[in-house]
Amino acid sequence: MPRFALGLEYDGSGFAGWQSQQHAASVQSALEAALSAVADHSVAALAAGRTDAGVHAAIQVVHFDSPSQRTERGWTLGANTHLPESVCALWTRAVPDTFHARYSALARTYRYVILNRLSRAALMHHRVCWVRYALDHERMHAAAQALVGEHDFSSFRDSECQSRTPVRRLERIDVERTADVVTITVTANAFLHHMIRNIAGVLIAIGRGQQSVEWCAEVLAERQRTKAGVTAVPHGLYFAGIRYPSDLQLPSDRSSFHPLNMMPHVPMPLV
Amino acid sequence: MPRFALGLEYDGSGFAGWQSQQHAASVQSALEAALSAVADHSVAALAAGRTDAGVHAAIQVVHFDSPSQRTERGWTLGANTHLPESVCALWTRAVPDTFHARYSALARTYRYVILNRLSRAALMHHRVCWVRYALDHERMHAAAQALVGEHDFSSFRDSECQSRTPVRRLERIDVERTADVVTITVTANAFLHHMIRNIAGVLIAIGRGQQSVEWCAEVLAERQRTKAGVTAVPHGLYFAGIRYPSDLQLPSDRSSFHPLNMMPHVPMPLV
Repeated sequence: MPRFALGLEYDGSGFAGWQSQQHAASVQSALEAALSAVADHSVAALAAGRTDAGVHAAIQVVHFDSPSQRTERGWTLGANTHLPESVCALWTRAVPDTFHARYSALARTYRYVILNRLSRAALMHHRVCWVRYALDHERMHAAAQALVGEHDFSSFRDSECQSRTPVRRLERIDVERTADVVTITVTANAFLHHMIRNIAGVLIAIGRGQQSVEWCAEVLAERQRTKAGVTAVPHGLYFAGIRYPSDLQLPSDRSSFHPLNMMPHVPMPLV
Repeated sequence: MPRFALGLEYDGSGFAGWQSQQHAASVQSALEAALSAVADHSVAALAAGRTDAGVHAAIQVVHFDSPSQRTERGWTLGANTHLPESVCALWTRAVPDTFHARYSALARTYRYVILNRLSRAALMHHRVCWVRYALDHERMHAAAQALVGEHDFSSFRDSECQSRTPVRRLERIDVERTADVVTITVTANAFLHHMIRNIAGVLIAIGRGQQSVEWCAEVLAERQRTKAGVTAVPHGLYFAGIRYPSDLQLPSDRSSFHPLNMMPHVPMPLV
């Protein structure tokens, strides 16, 4: 049966996460219902990564199988007429039947976006994490470099994580500031449950000066979920890119996507 | 009685506009309720400009009077504890009692943000105007320059506009593209009702190639609301800056604010 890859964008604030659940709205259920309507048969969609409740996707990639004769454009536009307004299909591509949205992925990129000012978010409520205390992004960036490489990330792993191994290979992590927005961009082969939000929690504590720059390496070395670590809120997190073998030519890298770019001539008061 | 200026940010999608109305939620009502709670007496707030239903504000400035002893910071943070999550106070400043949020304003800046791609907005639904047909932003920019200067803007004026005169002085208008986002930024001494959304409607038609570059100047010269003009949707519009006499030193310019900055390495398909 022909297989298709589909790129998806969503605002996760109204969903209980990617994965279908019995009594809550999920992105997966919404997408499968939309694709089933377009295909005229029941369609199952498998995703590159499961996002938690409240987490957004500048890009998510799924694959699905269908014998229905539709153009790539037809799948995309058809899905969009059936999807809720907080979800849209960006593109559809016919792929080899060996393609798997999750297992073919070589690396994933996420962005964590922090609004760092005195006043909470209004225009971007549910789209950013708000921190009112001044963050030193250079300290955060320096601290984060201890995470680069292959490590046992047990310290940043949720107790409910079902992964076989806590070892992941983190390729890069960058902390940048544009006016009152601090962004953490991180790429790894894969992530443990809550790993990025736990990293964000540690880096925010360092950025505020509550912890030393060395604390990030110390937490990593402990290899157990520390009491000190706070899991940062989900709505600052964006799934932003999935790297597949380049011969597939899937437009699945939106790792420069930024939900906001605030550069007021006169910055808003921080504290 | 001491007078204060207050800078405000809001997501207009849940409101019937700035102005208080009997049977609909307005930003003004929400703000006046919040300030009254902080002041411990009934507070009236007057705004630099009235925004329509669905229109956002990266900045809106109001003034209000109160004898209550609060610090500038106290007004800001106090208001935010009482405001709904889609509205926040950015700053408060004590001002001379001759200050008037509307009449002291020398110029206003608005931004109109268009998502120009095949798929409708998901992450930015209610935050942008979606145009799926390819827009030539250079044609739009060239056409828009005919509007610069002092003109009778009757062609861009809503039939319900209550202004005494249709003459406005437009200082500058720029149309720019960043990946799949086209932004119109316009500064004038003041605007007529629906003026910017009517300008956006004309420029979109030119950008799509439905009308010539010269059409914008022709519409202006007609000096009557043309049948050809479509009023662009409100949710692409952001109040973005108010210029006051510089000795007041109000941080009321957020004209570089951009609700999204999408620069995917691989742009999403346009058509």
